[in-house]
Amino acid sequence: MSNLPTSVEFHEEGPREGFQMEPKTYPLADRAALIDALSLSGLRQIQVASFVSARAVPQMADTSELFAAIIKRPGTRYTALWLNDNGFERARACEQVDLDGKLMFYTTEPFSQRNNNCSVAEMRERQLGWLDRYIALGIPVEKAYVITAFGCNLGGAVPLSVLTDQVRWLVDACADRRVPLPAVYLADTMGWANPEEIKRRVGAVRAIVPEAQIGLHLHDTRGVGGANVYAALQMGVRLFDSSVAGLGGCPFAGHTHGGAAGNICTEDMVFMCQELGIETGIDLEALIEASLLAERVIGRTLSGHVMHSGSLKGFRAGQRMQEICGAVR
Amino acid sequence: MSNLPTSVEFHEEGPREGFQMEPKTYPLADRAALIDALSLSGLRQIQVASFVSARAVPQMADTSELFAAIIKRPGTRYTALWLNDNGFERARACEQVDLDGKLMFYTTEPFSQRNNNCSVAEMRERQLGWLDRYIALGIPVEKAYVITAFGCNLGGAVPLSVLTDQVRWLVDACADRRVPLPAVYLADTMGWANPEEIKRRVGAVRAIVPEAQIGLHLHDTRGVGGANVYAALQMGVRLFDSSVAGLGGCPFAGHTHGGAAGNICTEDMVFMCQELGIETGIDLEALIEASLLAERVIGRTLSGHVMHSGSLKGFRAGQRMQEICGAVR
Repeated sequence: MSNLPTSVEFHEEGPREGFQMEPKTYPLADRAALIDALSLSGLRQIQVASFVSARAVPQMADTSELFAAIIKRPGTRYTALWLNDNGFERARACEQVDLDGKLMFYTTEPFSQRNNNCSVAEMRERQLGWLDRYIALGIPVEKAYVITAFGCNLGGAVPLSVLTDQVRWLVDACADRRVPLPAVYLADTMGWANPEEIKRRVGAVRAIVPEAQIGLHLHDTRGVGGANVYAALQMGVRLFDSSVAGLGGCPFAGHTHGGAAGNICTEDMVFMCQELGIETGIDLEALIEASLLAERVIGRTLSGHVMHSGSLKGFRAGQRMQEICGAVR
Repeated sequence: MSNLPTSVEFHEEGPREGFQMEPKTYPLADRAALIDALSLSGLRQIQVASFVSARAVPQMADTSELFAAIIKRPGTRYTALWLNDNGFERARACEQVDLDGKLMFYTTEPFSQRNNNCSVAEMRERQLGWLDRYIALGIPVEKAYVITAFGCNLGGAVPLSVLTDQVRWLVDACADRRVPLPAVYLADTMGWANPEEIKRRVGAVRAIVPEAQIGLHLHDTRGVGGANVYAALQMGVRLFDSSVAGLGGCPFAGHTHGGAAGNICTEDMVFMCQELGIETGIDLEALIEASLLAERVIGRTLSGHVMHSGSLKGFRAGQRMQEICGAVR
């Protein structure tokens, strides 16, 4: 039967994924207020923004200033994304950033080219450089992401062996350097996963790195995100990336009708976990407030569900019945 | 381990659920075109509209005319909803309607009052009248719905015993009349279900009616609809009500922020089943065309996912890579 974990951790990616996707740049004060609202819900990790080229991604030009504007809450880590040396040096120079040593692997050539302008093999070799740099700087290696670990709109189906080969290579690289590898994340960047494939690939990766945690970075591109999380929970997965209100998406995914393709929605998945009796460490009502703030900031209806319907807390206690239905006996 | 069925059946409720919810009445020709597009996808059953009071629900005033306008496809059943004698007689008088003998039970007093203006016990007694009428008219009893089988925004938590009591009473009523009961549907009218509760309640009902099929009528109110379908599939459930593009909702649910609370989305769930290797009998590409038509008719972005991202058919074959990424080697 199922093997649900007793607790899970959601790492919030909404501020980076969401604002990066939007054509306009939102006021810094609004973005900082959203991050502060998110931290108040008890989230243990929030990816604030990217240190990337201001020319390529003008929405992320003021990442250092944004970090400076946040009211850092003890118990929350404030992380950032970087894709190259320059971005990493900017992140290091920003003392508010909680540096997390991360690695990144691709599974298909066209997406590797599109996203990082290099081949899958070149990207892999570059990770040796990152590994050595983290070690030299005393930054613990925390996790490695395998991007499009389930399939890729640009490169097509991804055989399981491509995924496991990357993970095996990574395990060897860490072993050579005698550094532990705490977590391997499988990213379903373009919504190819299904619940049975989640189980199959989590199981296969776990067999290679039994001592590491498996994390999932899922997008709800095809409406299967929640089912994928449930399948992962059944496999005992305890680490999930997610986005408040379902913010975000993949700008290079090339979806057929250009529609929403955000990450799995943090508050919907927190709601599900709480209903399943799984500890999240998060105040769902505070998180819903943050998601409603995200909607006001972005200025359009966002795709989250529980933010619009409300949690079951008030309904369960029966007080809503009085308000809504007072005249009915 | 999982016990996924080899085939499932989706009964389309979008035309009734969707157009009933909208404040305006859409042109009959548009509604008929949507139903025709849906039937072309291979759906085995489509609930076309309601025979209800034109004063209370003006959007459903022309249900007979709508039935007359449809191009009926062999292999698809075209059903209707009625809530009282008058509605049933109108449905009977409309020769295009495929009458399905159905019963309806409530679990909480306030929602029974709000929806049917009677108590839970009165509603139960009324079902005896329906049973006898179906028998007298030679209409096979097909299914019984237990509304808010998981919980109710108006009435609060629904103990499992309330659900099982209704089902036991129903089984006795059918046994007394020596009529079989082919299916019992659990309706999560207001999005209270979670995957483990789906398993628990499906299992409990199946223990009472092992010879009946269990069906689920799920709403994706709190973002857990897909996970609930997957949990049901793991229990071997093969019957699902759903709505194209996620149309619909419950007008009396009294959600906190008034947002979307549609049914589970037909094409997203068909996509998931197909990815899981489960037969649906549906042409997903044709169904996506129907969902895009629904969006054009309704005139705003609907909540379905795969209708916007596209299925994996083209991506898997790799041809999209050429189109999107031709310049990349």
